[in-house]
Amino acid sequence: MDDRIIEHAHTLVDWSARIEAGNDVVVSVDEGAHELGVAVAEQLGDRDANMVVTYSSDEMDRAYQRAHGEEFATDPEYEHALYDRADSVLSLRGTRNTSAGADISEETQTAYAQAREGIREARLDTDWVSTVHPTRALAQQAGMSYEAYQDFVYDAILRDWEELAEEMSQLKELLDAGSEVRIVKDDKTDLTMSIENRTAVNSAASVAYDSHNLPSGEVFTAPADTAGQVVFDVPMTIRGTRIQNARLVFKDGVVVDIEADAGEDVLRSIVETDGGAERLGELGIGMNRGIDRITDQILFDEKMGGTVHLALGRAYEACLPEGESGNQSAVHVDLITNMQREGTRLEIDGEVIQRDGYFRWEEQFEG
Amino acid sequence: MDDRIIEHAHTLVDWSARIEAGNDVVVSVDEGAHELGVAVAEQLGDRDANMVVTYSSDEMDRAYQRAHGEEFATDPEYEHALYDRADSVLSLRGTRNTSAGADISEETQTAYAQAREGIREARLDTDWVSTVHPTRALAQQAGMSYEAYQDFVYDAILRDWEELAEEMSQLKELLDAGSEVRIVKDDKTDLTMSIENRTAVNSAASVAYDSHNLPSGEVFTAPADTAGQVVFDVPMTIRGTRIQNARLVFKDGVVVDIEADAGEDVLRSIVETDGGAERLGELGIGMNRGIDRITDQILFDEKMGGTVHLALGRAYEACLPEGESGNQSAVHVDLITNMQREGTRLEIDGEVIQRDGYFRWEEQFEG
Repeated sequence: MDDRIIEHAHTLVDWSARIEAGNDVVVSVDEGAHELGVAVAEQLGDRDANMVVTYSSDEMDRAYQRAHGEEFATDPEYEHALYDRADSVLSLRGTRNTSAGADISEETQTAYAQAREGIREARLDTDWVSTVHPTRALAQQAGMSYEAYQDFVYDAILRDWEELAEEMSQLKELLDAGSEVRIVKDDKTDLTMSIENRTAVNSAASVAYDSHNLPSGEVFTAPADTAGQVVFDVPMTIRGTRIQNARLVFKDGVVVDIEADAGEDVLRSIVETDGGAERLGELGIGMNRGIDRITDQILFDEKMGGTVHLALGRAYEACLPEGESGNQSAVHVDLITNMQREGTRLEIDGEVIQRDGYFRWEEQFEG
Repeated sequence: MDDRIIEHAHTLVDWSARIEAGNDVVVSVDEGAHELGVAVAEQLGDRDANMVVTYSSDEMDRAYQRAHGEEFATDPEYEHALYDRADSVLSLRGTRNTSAGADISEETQTAYAQAREGIREARLDTDWVSTVHPTRALAQQAGMSYEAYQDFVYDAILRDWEELAEEMSQLKELLDAGSEVRIVKDDKTDLTMSIENRTAVNSAASVAYDSHNLPSGEVFTAPADTAGQVVFDVPMTIRGTRIQNARLVFKDGVVVDIEADAGEDVLRSIVETDGGAERLGELGIGMNRGIDRITDQILFDEKMGGTVHLALGRAYEACLPEGESGNQSAVHVDLITNMQREGTRLEIDGEVIQRDGYFRWEEQFEG
């Protein structure tokens, strides 16, 4: 077995999920994640944790959902009982075909997901962690060879997380203390937003940091009163449609104009979903330098060091003062801008925190 | 997908497990049983049953057990809760390596199994069914090509079970009414045993018949007071050792002599396990004519039409009068003799029920 798989399992179990002896762990294994499953099983055995393994098969799910009648049972009690009592759920993602569910109707997928909302909540109530095992299907989606994609994934995952968490805590402190963020880039990007009284999350790929994805490596908060304009130059696929160079104009916190070289219609329909969809729910700052390229997989793209992402829609509760509900919406759609360009600036209360994609505590930063 | 896989899933869900709308079903998928899993998922969806899929990976089990300390947690509550509430457990066996667990120490395997006794009981308390998906590893173990092995497995599984159940009920009636069974074969086989007051089980591969394996196709009961001698000419592997032409002599129900062309020591050590291991716990009569050859896989071999098997050790409760405990033992080891030889007879109370391997209701029977 590739040493990196063992290292990945080690990072997942120790750093991310903080598994201890006697913990009741559910491991959810995708069709293509068997090898990581074996490595994780070994780590769990070594920790004297308990293990139940579920099989998360895209093909079984598709067959089941397509054959089933319109009415799915609400939160079957036997499944609910498992997650209700589990301490941790480790999801080992690794599909063998990113289009495996392409012929399940949207109504069926929605009905199935809605019927299982309670089970989803029970999973989210555990110390859950979701991670990715590199498969050929994911390499293909990223437009990369399998070998290069493996390197890419492990570079993102096998970080010195302790060190990164410390670096990210510096940014969190600045955001927590600050009142206004400004993003300046090309002649079409100059955006300000309020972050007053908001708490930033240091997303360090560990339940100890309230961070549930491996890899992670971003600091995010919930902005308000956004004003100005911004170009998202990182191309991405949203709802099956390619989005390129989306340009959004904000006034008093609300989107007032949308343009894009590609995918403008999809963006418009997202913004029109509900009242919250025309406001920002998240300002996220990517800090994972192990991610060195865009692969059109949001889990990786939004963490890339030197990028900033803004999400239309729902805000995360952890960023809000107690009692405040923040921006509500049925959607949360991330859009990314690359700050690794000459002349870019990220400012907090007028102070330059990042220039040309480099933070002021990095060597490459030019004051 | 091979039509036979779909037909297999259909037989499993309808004939064997009798799944109905709203049933809470756990599907346990072996590493090599993915395709059958997809077909079963479709059938379960079609029945509007609920589905939880567990992954029964030999390699994950091995890694976990080897890495774990000596003490396994007793029946972890979260796993127990799942099986406690499930209506059915469908086990789709299909290993990719029959030796996958060869380097787990016997102590570890025993400790792990013992710690999970309650979970095993909870599974057995459901309408469970275990079946086999043909894999290359199983074909190899059977000494067959993959294609021929697939034919073999589906011939055994895709029967007219309703018809077979009816045929088997004839034999059950004869056994239930009878007092003594006699097996006569070559000059070294003439064995009698009492079946008075015992109830035979019509094992028709369906929970409706209290039969939990697909394929099945045998009628079995619990004999007593065995006397005479018998040669088991069907070769088999027991505890990793090849057994050939075992010859056992019984007196007053107890084994008094053992000989074998190969594997004599293993047989002796089995008989010496405990007091119950030197007596018979089962007389089983194979009636599945879809099984036309010996593959050294007991689940198939013992069901082969024209064979009779006798098990040293534990008797099945279902065969005993209420309140009677029957033969008790830590072991239950089946040995098989092929009745498809000229001059063989199976008699009940002196009446010839089977001759040369054919039952008296079969065309080929010569009275």
